[in-house]
Amino acid sequence: MARITGFATFDVRFPTSRTLDGSDAMNPSPDYAAAYVALRTDAEDVSGDAFVFTIGRGNDVQLAAIRALEPLMVGLDLDATLDDLGGLWRRLVGDSQLRWLGPEKGVMHMAIGAVVNACWDLAAKRAGLPLWRLLASLSPEQVLDLLDFRYLTDALSRDEAREILEGAEQGKAERIAELDANGYPAYTTSPGWLGYSDERLVKQLEAAAKEGFSQVKLKVGASLADDVRRCEIARAVLGPGIDIAVDANQVWDVGPAVAWIRELARFDLAWVEEPTSPDDVLGTAAIRRAVSPVPIAAGEHVANRVVFKQLLQAGAIDVMQIDACRVAGVNENILNLLLAKKFGVPVCPHAGGVGLCEAVQHLSFFDYAAVSCSTEARKIEWIDHLHEHFVAPAVVVEGRYRAPAVPGASTQMRAESLAEYSYPDGPGWAQGKYETGRT
Amino acid sequence: MARITGFATFDVRFPTSRTLDGSDAMNPSPDYAAAYVALRTDAEDVSGDAFVFTIGRGNDVQLAAIRALEPLMVGLDLDATLDDLGGLWRRLVGDSQLRWLGPEKGVMHMAIGAVVNACWDLAAKRAGLPLWRLLASLSPEQVLDLLDFRYLTDALSRDEAREILEGAEQGKAERIAELDANGYPAYTTSPGWLGYSDERLVKQLEAAAKEGFSQVKLKVGASLADDVRRCEIARAVLGPGIDIAVDANQVWDVGPAVAWIRELARFDLAWVEEPTSPDDVLGTAAIRRAVSPVPIAAGEHVANRVVFKQLLQAGAIDVMQIDACRVAGVNENILNLLLAKKFGVPVCPHAGGVGLCEAVQHLSFFDYAAVSCSTEARKIEWIDHLHEHFVAPAVVVEGRYRAPAVPGASTQMRAESLAEYSYPDGPGWAQGKYETGRT
Repeated sequence: MARITGFATFDVRFPTSRTLDGSDAMNPSPDYAAAYVALRTDAEDVSGDAFVFTIGRGNDVQLAAIRALEPLMVGLDLDATLDDLGGLWRRLVGDSQLRWLGPEKGVMHMAIGAVVNACWDLAAKRAGLPLWRLLASLSPEQVLDLLDFRYLTDALSRDEAREILEGAEQGKAERIAELDANGYPAYTTSPGWLGYSDERLVKQLEAAAKEGFSQVKLKVGASLADDVRRCEIARAVLGPGIDIAVDANQVWDVGPAVAWIRELARFDLAWVEEPTSPDDVLGTAAIRRAVSPVPIAAGEHVANRVVFKQLLQAGAIDVMQIDACRVAGVNENILNLLLAKKFGVPVCPHAGGVGLCEAVQHLSFFDYAAVSCSTEARKIEWIDHLHEHFVAPAVVVEGRYRAPAVPGASTQMRAESLAEYSYPDGPGWAQGKYETGRT
Repeated sequence: MARITGFATFDVRFPTSRTLDGSDAMNPSPDYAAAYVALRTDAEDVSGDAFVFTIGRGNDVQLAAIRALEPLMVGLDLDATLDDLGGLWRRLVGDSQLRWLGPEKGVMHMAIGAVVNACWDLAAKRAGLPLWRLLASLSPEQVLDLLDFRYLTDALSRDEAREILEGAEQGKAERIAELDANGYPAYTTSPGWLGYSDERLVKQLEAAAKEGFSQVKLKVGASLADDVRRCEIARAVLGPGIDIAVDANQVWDVGPAVAWIRELARFDLAWVEEPTSPDDVLGTAAIRRAVSPVPIAAGEHVANRVVFKQLLQAGAIDVMQIDACRVAGVNENILNLLLAKKFGVPVCPHAGGVGLCEAVQHLSFFDYAAVSCSTEARKIEWIDHLHEHFVAPAVVVEGRYRAPAVPGASTQMRAESLAEYSYPDGPGWAQGKYETGRT
């Protein structure tokens, strides 16, 4: 009988603040990082790998939280664990002492997400399938057994979820074939970082258009004059045929959000993202009502399914943006996909960072195959950055994600990258250019 | 010029799970713990002490988060820092890399709370005043400078807060004198732990009545039959003159909460606490509407001021329960008190655990002196447990908290206790009775 033997953990950080890749109004100088876990077993020479994405300082705190879960995993029967990942999810999220540290939010909840996702990576590798195909191969009842409907039943019952999943059985094989042939739509944020010059913006916009993207996203919220100028540049470069979304990264209060968005509305925005605090369901709903018909998007920092439920109940969002690392892993994100389907809101995942594209693509592919059955108004964020560190990088061609084909969840990093960028002792940090402490 | 030199940190845990003190429907077997920080300076032989309360496993994760803040504090000018704790709060909460780990919730946010509270303990010790008197001595403008209104301005502007604070200037000296003379109302949860037998319940209820408490609280939510029986016992022992509140510790979904509360409504409850997820503003509001006029209380697990704002905006709560350790310290809790005053909802703080009574009493005393100016329908939770570990323990006599008189925030533990219960090497743990791992 094979058992889980332990975690190997890595504090992986990339010195991205040197180039201002990833700069926005809330996060002027991130060092993209991964609190990385490899789940080891005594069964075979394959690990289940996953991570929490962070932006630098505090990656060690996130790693401490992942390590705190190791005693709950060591010694578990491997087959039994992977055969009941719904049960594992409930045990980890329900551990009352650890739950106190959230509950179900922040560092501890994201740590559970990494461990759950590492199990999924291992399960998919052992099944010889990319994660999205493994998920799509499950029966509705098997999917339901992965899910904990606690706190959701006023909006989505197990029976309603079953109805959605059973309804999606029809045509599933055809949709999987279509995904294999044509992939899934992407949009790009690579041009839009706030720290880039106008010249660089133009160059990157031209590249995005040339690469076949039908939507780009710009960061906004630091200066209205700058935002107007950058939107004008984008519209001029892109023409009317390519959508423009903007992302404020939570910088506004409700009143200022409404005023600012009204100034940008003339650019016919695809959406305005994270206008205010990710916790502010009522505030986001108030903003949406006030700026209608400008679409509002949110979700990358939404702590759990309970907040997503309310965003949908309150009619606060036109676009729901799940994140692969923010909630407690694949299981909770399947609930998020089901909630979105129930309320008729498209899911356009947040990605970028380190490995977020790799991780989240599987969820959108699964969504099309087995939940929403639609790609209408749906696209996955794409940022062409740091993919070279992954064993099976996400691939975007002509504005579309190619269907992941390698067994696993695409979340395993290359051993060389783990070594090179281990913080603070990896050779990637040898120059001592990284500064902790005050910002 | 004096400077902050560093943190001394302690992983303090008490083996409370051996006795089931603290057991409830969500937390069957907690080991009360403190992720404890002593802020050291080169100025004098006095430290600023504070902690995050946890219930056992994960206290080390919480401590890692506190330690992650040390580089942001070491070397700071002591006087300048303590003179501008509003600025410090904004820098710590606003550190974009650390903020990613919440944002503004969970482990990282609570860590900031501990560091901010340690600064307040030090400031009050240096001022030679108990914290509540130091806060009450500040002018409205000085209080405002402590506060960050970000994400609140749709419900509470700085001008509105100023109006509240200026309105409370009148009679402040008299209210302070009254607090010194008569203290502040308390209620007790000591009788009501779910793990206690009926015999023990009766004995403790009789003691509570004899000690002069005008309200007790029982844990509910595991079994309706048990809850009904325990409420019957409580009403029989206490008679009609002493209020009974019940606490479900988040175990219900919206529908089950409504059904269960209706079954308990005949006991004329003072309030039903935490009927569902602390994140579920809309769900809590729906429950309150459905069970009206049974009062609903919540807040001990509310992650930040943004969620409190919404609970008030949505009319979800009759009683607001702040916690000294859940949000980012005194500064954020002053905002919470102001929000409650604005919406006309009484604040009855959550306490108990380790040191929560000690810490939170200062906020209610300040609330009466300088914010709400009322003790009507207000009382602080009291649990007579683990106070002996504090240098200046909270004191409750005849159902009322005595006014804290010792300089500081009452959050300093005795050095002997820190040593005895340091986990895992303190002599208090020498028996090896404590088990980590699976629950």
